[in-house]
Amino acid sequence: MFKSRNEVTEAIVIARIRKKLSWADVAKAIGRSDVWTISACLGQMIFSADEAKVVVELFDLDDSATALLQVVPYKGTFKGGAPDDPLLYRWYEMLSVYGPAIKELIHEEFGDGIMSAIDFRMNIGREVDPAGDRVHVNISGKFLPYKPF
Amino acid sequence: MFKSRNEVTEAIVIARIRKKLSWADVAKAIGRSDVWTISACLGQMIFSADEAKVVVELFDLDDSATALLQVVPYKGTFKGGAPDDPLLYRWYEMLSVYGPAIKELIHEEFGDGIMSAIDFRMNIGREVDPAGDRVHVNISGKFLPYKPF
Amino acid sequence: MFKSRNEVTEAIVIARIRKKLSWADVAKAIGRSDVWTISACLGQMIFSADEAKVVVELFDLDDSATALLQVVPYKGTFKGGAPDDPLLYRWYEMLSVYGPAIKELIHEEFGDGIMSAIDFRMNIGREVDPAGDRVHVNISGKFLPYKPF
Amino acid sequence: MFKSRNEVTEAIVIARIRKKLSWADVAKAIGRSDVWTISACLGQMIFSADEAKVVVELFDLDDSATALLQVVPYKGTFKGGAPDDPLLYRWYEMLSVYGPAIKELIHEEFGDGIMSAIDFRMNIGREVDPAGDRVHVNISGKFLPYKPF
Amino acid sequence: MFKSRNEVTEAIVIARIRKKLSWADVAKAIGRSDVWTISACLGQMIFSADEAKVVVELFDLDDSATALLQVVPYKGTFKGGAPDDPLLYRWYEMLSVYGPAIKELIHEEFGDGIMSAIDFRMNIGREVDPAGDRVHVNISGKFLPYKPF
Amino acid sequence: MFKSRNEVTEAIVIARIRKKLSWADVAKAIGRSDVWTISACLGQMIFSADEAKVVVELFDLDDSATALLQVVPYKGTFKGGAPDDPLLYRWYEMLSVYGPAIKELIHEEFGDGIMSAIDFRMNIGREVDPAGDRVHVNISGKFLPYKPF
Amino acid sequence: MFKSRNEVTEAIVIARIRKKLSWADVAKAIGRSDVWTISACLGQMIFSADEAKVVVELFDLDDSATALLQVVPYKGTFKGGAPDDPLLYRWYEMLSVYGPAIKELIHEEFGDGIMSAIDFRMNIGREVDPAGDRVHVNISGKFLPYKPF
Amino acid sequence: MFKSRNEVTEAIVIARIRKKLSWADVAKAIGRSDVWTISACLGQMIFSADEAKVVVELFDLDDSATALLQVVPYKGTFKGGAPDDPLLYRWYEMLSVYGPAIKELIHEEFGDGIMSAIDFRMNIGREVDPAGDRVHVNISGKFLPYKPF
Amino acid sequence: MFKSRNEVTEAIVIARIRKKLSWADVAKAIGRSDVWTISACLGQMIFSADEAKVVVELFDLDDSATALLQVVPYKGTFKGGAPDDPLLYRWYEMLSVYGPAIKELIHEEFGDGIMSAIDFRMNIGREVDPAGDRVHVNISGKFLPYKPF
Amino acid sequence: MFKSRNEVTEAIVIARIRKKLSWADVAKAIGRSDVWTISACLGQMIFSADEAKVVVELFDLDDSATALLQVVPYKGTFKGGAPDDPLLYRWYEMLSVYGPAIKELIHEEFGDGIMSAIDFRMNIGREVDPAGDRVHVNISGKFLPYKPF
Repeated sequence: MFKSRNEVTEAIVIARIRKKLSWADVAKAIGRSDVWTISACLGQMIFSADEAKVVVELFDLDDSATALLQVVPYKGTFKGGAPDDPLLYRWYEMLSVYGPAIKELIHEEFGDGIMSAIDFRMNIGREVDPAGDRVHVNISGKFLPYKPF
Repeated sequence: MFKSRNEVTEAIVIARIRKKLSWADVAKAIGRSDVWTISACLGQMIFSADEAKVVVELFDLDDSATALLQVVPYKGTFKGGAPDDPLLYRWYEMLSVYGPAIKELIHEEFGDGIMSAIDFRMNIGREVDPAGDRVHVNISGKFLPYKPF
Repeated sequence: MFKSRNEVTEAIVIARIRKKLSWADVAKAIGRSDVWTISACLGQMIFSADEAKVVVELFDLDDSATALLQVVPYKGTFKGGAPDDPLLYRWYEMLSVYGPAIKELIHEEFGDGIMSAIDFRMNIGREVDPAGDRVHVNISGKFLPYKPF
Repeated sequence: MFKSRNEVTEAIVIARIRKKLSWADVAKAIGRSDVWTISACLGQMIFSADEAKVVVELFDLDDSATALLQVVPYKGTFKGGAPDDPLLYRWYEMLSVYGPAIKELIHEEFGDGIMSAIDFRMNIGREVDPAGDRVHVNISGKFLPYKPF
Repeated sequence: MFKSRNEVTEAIVIARIRKKLSWADVAKAIGRSDVWTISACLGQMIFSADEAKVVVELFDLDDSATALLQVVPYKGTFKGGAPDDPLLYRWYEMLSVYGPAIKELIHEEFGDGIMSAIDFRMNIGREVDPAGDRVHVNISGKFLPYKPF
Repeated sequence: MFKSRNEVTEAIVIARIRKKLSWADVAKAIGRSDVWTISACLGQMIFSADEAKVVVELFDLDDSATALLQVVPYKGTFKGGAPDDPLLYRWYEMLSVYGPAIKELIHEEFGDGIMSAIDFRMNIGREVDPAGDRVHVNISGKFLPYKPF
Repeated sequence: MFKSRNEVTEAIVIARIRKKLSWADVAKAIGRSDVWTISACLGQMIFSADEAKVVVELFDLDDSATALLQVVPYKGTFKGGAPDDPLLYRWYEMLSVYGPAIKELIHEEFGDGIMSAIDFRMNIGREVDPAGDRVHVNISGKFLPYKPF
Repeated sequence: MFKSRNEVTEAIVIARIRKKLSWADVAKAIGRSDVWTISACLGQMIFSADEAKVVVELFDLDDSATALLQVVPYKGTFKGGAPDDPLLYRWYEMLSVYGPAIKELIHEEFGDGIMSAIDFRMNIGREVDPAGDRVHVNISGKFLPYKPF
Repeated sequence: MFKSRNEVTEAIVIARIRKKLSWADVAKAIGRSDVWTISACLGQMIFSADEAKVVVELFDLDDSATALLQVVPYKGTFKGGAPDDPLLYRWYEMLSVYGPAIKELIHEEFGDGIMSAIDFRMNIGREVDPAGDRVHVNISGKFLPYKPF
Repeated sequence: MFKSRNEVTEAIVIARIRKKLSWADVAKAIGRSDVWTISACLGQMIFSADEAKVVVELFDLDDSATALLQVVPYKGTFKGGAPDDPLLYRWYEMLSVYGPAIKELIHEEFGDGIMSAIDFRMNIGREVDPAGDRVHVNISGKFLPYKPF
């Protein structure tokens, strides 16, 4: 019987590895994007009642997980160091909340390595939206693999 | 006579405001993208000899700035809190190095406010490149303006 | 048999989810306001003997919880970063002590999301009181929901 | 000639004291609420072109302040310690951005002292709004004066 | 069988609550002052062999506690932030070592609440002593109770 | 012309040494206790208009100090490390606000050295007061002088 | 059944000591360099499927380790203090990722002690490489043994 | 007239840029290796009397620098985060003391960019030495240039 | 069966108390000095094979401790705060590595209390040694006992 | 005219270098031990009126230094990281207060380098004293010189 969302998250992480499920499979089963799905499976988002059922089945979880997956969790994975300025803070929060999902996704697609912040480009523009304009960002960084030596 | 790159940066910041130059104007004069140009003007990148001349003229800087603008600076603007994991770190470095440019660019385009990390979506994919494949990221966050009350 | 108030708090948190009790139900059963009730259930306040009995029954707790619920706990949930100034500190303490209750209450009423600090207004005034005048504060911030993508 | 918004802020702080202007007077002259006005004068908000002129005249500032008062500043006054959770963070940001204004306002109204976080009550509710519902918060804390001894 | 002084301390804390012993009772049984007794029971001081026996009986502890209660413990309960200056440090150490005892004592006498640092006075003087003069300090702070709301 | 309370404080500190005034003389001139007087002179408290005049004369300060001495300052002298618990915090705040005054007072009375936290005793009791009972604390610590060697 | 890579790492560390395997033996069995092998065994790198099998056999691990050894881990072993500058950071990351392997290797070769940073020399040069030139570093530091006394 | 070694260091840094001297030129003039020379010029090492004269002439420094260049400085450039273990610490110290020299040297040879810690290899071995064996380290990391975009 | 050196250290600490062995007895049995012996027993040094056997017998440890006592441990007991300067750092390291042994030794000889840093003297001189001269330090500090009150 | 003890300390530091006075000369002129003298000159101790005169003459200081040298300073030179335990803390304080003097003394006697904490021995014993027994400590560490390369 799960006692906290953290316990459910740990169970999902290890179950996915044992069952050799890719995150892409998981996202398809739930019907959401990759980033959101991984982020939610890693304990940062709530699932709807229906989604929670899918998650419980997919990972063979104890039924007590169902309710916990629908309760708003404490979010964020960084420990200290947030910038003071509100605009910069939200970019930092983006990394704190979605960072583990980003890491999983890049490793699933490319293997062990990093996205370069040196061989890198970025642009930022306006995305017109009747519900309020949006900031649109494009980032491109070379993937650099770790190689055994 | 400038004694450090920091002094040049401070001079550029105040000169741009006094001369009512937009960052878009500056980028056009230098012939680079907005993000890179602002980042370089804010002391994170080196300029080529030709670019340095343009910068000195554009902002009416003392000629001693020319050499300093071509010397590799100490980069980064965050103070502590970097994540341990190398993949996550490079995203953090991206904010530490380009964060002030991101802030300037969004404020120039949208005014005072923030890019929401709540009304937000992101996807990550592979960008095939003969020189080595790249990670491509799309981010879209609603702009939320500060309103006086 | 509970060994500390923390263990009682953890039991309350999970029991409430399993029994699908709303915080509003809990507050009604105890006869106190929402904010105070949640704050006390989360281990920040002491209950009277009568209230402790209600809590133990409501959440089917082991009887050893009764005494622990009446012992003054170590309070506060933030970890470092308190401002030096005594006036500002007390606002910080308010968040440290009541923050988890605020989080529960907003999520119960609005779902997953945040209260905006950008689309936000606040006023502060004097509340005359024969037992000593009070500072009265009104805050209004737009609720922004997390949406899956 | 001002070189940064910080220098303008310092000039405003000392000019207000020398000219014996109350913050209420300043807010009236600018035509905004007390909290917003103080916050903006202390360097956390931008002024419109018209407001900037009023500020420059009111405090007899050098004309170079006019442009600086309209440039989005780096905001926030706390140094580290932000909570990880996005909901709690925004309350922390509220204190980091508006805290100095809160301090000024309470001291102007009540003198030296603090708003108690012990003799304190708070409630939180929904404020229906066609542009999106809002979280409404009422806080009442006893004012406790410092007394010389 | 206890493996460390910390385990003995935790056992004392919970046994006192279960047995409904006041700290005043404990101090009387041991024959020491309230502050010292609580401080020692909370793991900051060593007991003599005779005192250790009383403690073990009073709280029905396993006999293995007897030796541990006579071994000098690691003291101090604060985590970082000590002032550099030696005179100020010793006041800080006083809080770090005796703070938990102060907390227990005030709550036992007054209930849940705090000693005000605003409605507060203090004086410091010389206490002549043939074994070396002493600094004598008198502090008086109003007790402010937490009230449920 | 003083630009901040900090500048006034620095001027008082050095003027007192040059004029060879004891803190006891200063307290007598102002008509307050030693602890409060030193604390106020060191920038932690506000003076009344009459007291501010005395201070300005006593230390031959520029007249611009008069207004600054009556404005509520940012208080506190410690930098980080405040305990989370509200009761313990207020003792910490006592040291943060009055610590420099305590240091001056002990050095004026005893010379260079410290108040021992080892050869030390303390008791805490109730002080009945019609305006609300008070916590009364007595502390006695041996003075230990630094000796040159 | 292993629940995380950390558990696998702990099992490897103790198994190597019990089986009296040198790291050189382990590296030979896996067919990689010493530094890389130790680093991977200590949880910083992924093994290929074949290498994972060798590791599981060599250390008599439960078969559930096989999958975990192929999953990209959270890397890095330092806790805070990374320099801001990207060039300096990568040297710091080198220590954070490979530091434990460096420690094992030097102790295996030389016993308990340290590599001196005082009796020390270093040079840095260019290593021409058709796939992109490399920075080549030579470091030589005297080994200083701990001696019992 | 220089008042501290820091002032001398700042003067050297800016003089080298103005005079367009390479670090290789400086090292040749002084007759030491590149790493040591840069490190000493950046304030981490002492110069002999003869070397100090060369430095003063080379950079046209005020004669008061001569004595300061021969006084042992406070060394180290990192701010916190040193690992506890003595072996690991000395590698960290190596970066703290020689890091700025490493940065200068790589930028002088390769331009703006970093030495990769991903496309990286390292080996460690014994260097027999009659005065006590030494640890020998070879590191090779690909240079990655920053490119404007 | 011990899984780490830490577990062995904890077993030694409690075994010594239960068996009422003094550290002086332990040092005699092992044939080393008090400081080194305690330091090694507390997990900071390695034992030779013969010494490890003595330790295992003396404290009735499980035989699996024998190998662990001969493996170089992670050393150091302080958590952050190391000074940057290499000379000062090594004094700090001395405290971090030998501090727990110093604490045990002073308490064994003098009981609960501290070595004064106020009633204190120190001298430092050269100790000529053919293997390289040594720094010799003499420290004398008054012992101050804690007294119950 | 000196405004603080810090300014006097800085003047002493540079005057000693310019006048080529050794610390041994200074100690002889003042008539105290090396450690105490350097510590006092570096701003950690007060001088008597007579000693202050000698210091002012020796270093050709402005007469305003005389009073400042007799006022108890804020002591300590470390910034954070003090251990919690009172016994360990006093050793840390010893380094914080006397560390800069230790550094000067070792460099004056041995040149640039460090006292090894590896090739190191220490013993601790009782020094019988009618005024209260003392802890006596002997430390011997090999001097390791920095050598240019």
